Formats: sequence, C-alpha cells, structure tokens
Amino acid sequence: MQPIDFWYSIGSTYSYLTVMRLPDVARAAGVTFRWRPFNVRYVMTEQNNIPFKDKPVKAAYMWRDIARRAARYGLEPDLPAAYPLQGLELANQVAILGVEEGWVEEYTRAAYQLWFEEDEPAGQEPNLTLALTKVGVDPARALTDARTPRIIDRLAHETAEAMKLGVFGAPTFVVEGEVFWGDDRLEDAIDWALNPSPA
Amino acid sequence: MQPIDFWYSIGSTYSYLTVMRLPDVARAAGVTFRWRPFNVRYVMTEQNNIPFKDKPVKAAYMWRDIARRAARYGLEPDLPAAYPLQGLELANQVAILGVEEGWVEEYTRAAYQLWFEEDEPAGQEPNLTLALTKVGVDPARALTDARTPRIIDRLAHETAEAMKLGVFGAPTFVVEGEVFWGDDRLEDAIDWALNPSPA
Repeated sequence: MQPIDFWYSIGSTYSYLTVMRLPDVARAAGVTFRWRPFNVRYVMTEQNNIPFKDKPVKAAYMWRDIARRAARYGLEPDLPAAYPLQGLELANQVAILGVEEGWVEEYTRAAYQLWFEEDEPAGQEPNLTLALTKVGVDPARALTDARTPRIIDRLAHETAEAMKLGVFGAPTFVVEGEVFWGDDRLEDAIDWALNPSPA
Repeated sequence: MQPIDFWYSIGSTYSYLTVMRLPDVARAAGVTFRWRPFNVRYVMTEQNNIPFKDKPVKAAYMWRDIARRAARYGLEPDLPAAYPLQGLELANQVAILGVEEGWVEEYTRAAYQLWFEEDEPAGQEPNLTLALTKVGVDPARALTDARTPRIIDRLAHETAEAMKLGVFGAPTFVVEGEVFWGDDRLEDAIDWALNPSPA
C-alpha cells in the first residue's frame, strides 16, 4: 500500500493533534504516512480563506474544541497557544530540510510540543534551537541551510503541489488523489486507504 | 438527562447529514434532541464568516466530503444540491411554526430530502407544499402563519439565543452550555451528555 500523504504546516492549530497522535495511529492501523510540510498561509491567503482572524467566537470555539480533542488523545496542551505564528515560513523551511535529511517528523513534533505545551512559538527562538537540538541536528548549520534559496524554492514547490491536489487547509490527508481535510478526517483517510471505494 | 439542543438552519449543507441520521443515532445512544431552527445566515453574516462563497476549491471539497459521509450513513444525495438557498428565511420560519405545532422534525427531514435528493430547493415551491403535505399539514394555512410577525420574531429570538450560547455555524449541538459544531461532532456531543467531563 502507498503511504498516505500528510500535508501540514507548522502554524496550523489543528495539526497539533495530528502531529502528536500520528505515530500511534499509524502503528495501530498498519499504515504509513509521508510528512509533507507546505505553506498553508500562502494557500489560504490566495483563496481568501481566513478562518479565525476577526472571528472571535469561532476562534474561541477552535481552542475549546482542540482542548477537548486533545484530552481524548491524552495530550495536555496549554491553550490558547500563540497564534498566528510569526515564523511560519522559517518553521516550515526547517521542516523541508528535515524531509531531505530524514528528521522531519521528530523535528515537527518537538516544535509543536514546545509551541503548544511550553508556550514557545514555533519558527522563532528558542523553539528552533531547542527543537533541532532535541532531534540531534546542529541548529546553526540547519538554520543556515533552511534559509537557502534551494529550500525556499522547495517549500514553494511543495505548496504549489498541494494546491494542485486540491489542498486548501491543514492538516490534509491525500490518498490516491482523494482529499481529506482536518484531524477529524484522519480515520476516514485510513479507511479509504484500506478499502478504496467509489463513493 | 436533559435533551441535547440541536441548532440548525434549513440552508446549511452539512445539516443534511445530521437531519437524516439523527433519529437512528438518538435511538442507538438513548439520548433525545431538541430541534432548534435558527437563521445561521444572519449569524455568519454578522460574524463575517463566509465559508464557501468565492472559495471554489473549498466548496468543491465540501460537496465531496458530504458525498463520502452520506455514503457511510447509507444516504443517497444527488450532489451538489442548490446552494445557497434563496428561501432560507421562509424555510426556517416554517420550521419554527413546526416547533410550536410538533411537526418540526418531520418537516425538516422532508424539506432536506426534497432539496438534497430530488433537486427541489427548500424554502420555495414546490418544496414547501410537498414537505408540509407529507407531514400532514395544510400548506396554505401553514405558509400564512409562518409569515406572521410572531413567527418572524420568534426565529429572530432563537437566532439571538443561539449567538448568546456561542453558536456560529450549523449544525451545532449544545449540551449544558458546551458547544459542539459540525455533524462530525455529534458523537462527541453525545459522549459529553453521557459523561460530562471538565476537559
């Protein structure tokens, strides 16, 4: 079976839930995921899709909903987390470097843990250095590489690829062209991967 | 146990799923629901919350997602359905009359079935007459009563009440002040009703 593409941005709030529970879910279901960081802010700005800014009622609900869902998953976030992230681009440039070098998953989880559980926003210091150190990567070297045109271009390329697939938010799961949006569609995506059907 | 408040508008797309499956879900879970029509368009306009207009990618996903979810529930909608509804207000004024007279649930289901499965938009003819006839109500009488200031005021009052509770979209379930938004939170709302917890 093909791995399920897990499209996310460090910066997406609901992606916290997926990032933290994905290893357990993958093991239990016997499926694998390919972690694909992209720039969700670019996509949403392009599509005039602004879910929370100037929407205080909906934003308050979002945090409450994440708190309830986190409790179900045994997570203990300290909410609300800083939002929106000022360092979204850099956080995801580092993640792209992590894809190339094989530490994207651990870095992403460390960055979210610091952001959602220890009040250190991702994509800025000390989150960057702490998260990279935690996964055994030299922060100075990685942060230099993550700022190169090659990595910036690759993030843009991945973002364009996501848009081509119909991705408009994060997290999104793509299974053989079928798009599932939201942490709450993870189980549907897995069902689809295990039993493709022409609904 | 108190009934769970089911806030919805005839006009909401995802409410189709809830309206059609709620009787089975209620029976299986041993819970009851109070059907509370309100004007979700008023609330969303007030809150500058515009989910699908001028968002073709997200709108296309919404229909696909509803199709997949409907298949899970054994429903057979003919999608996309007409959207947005021109007769949203009148459709819900009739529903408010149905609350007073005890036929809101059957009317709502008939209106959605005609709209989503037989391409007859709710809130206009022939949907209004067909749905009312199906539930055994004289359409001429009901449509006259549904247009009275008393019913118009009551819909506005219910809409204000929904906003006071923190409702910002439809469908929404409210359990002792706790708000759950979306057909995909119905099970969470039921869990909350059965096992209230301080998440």
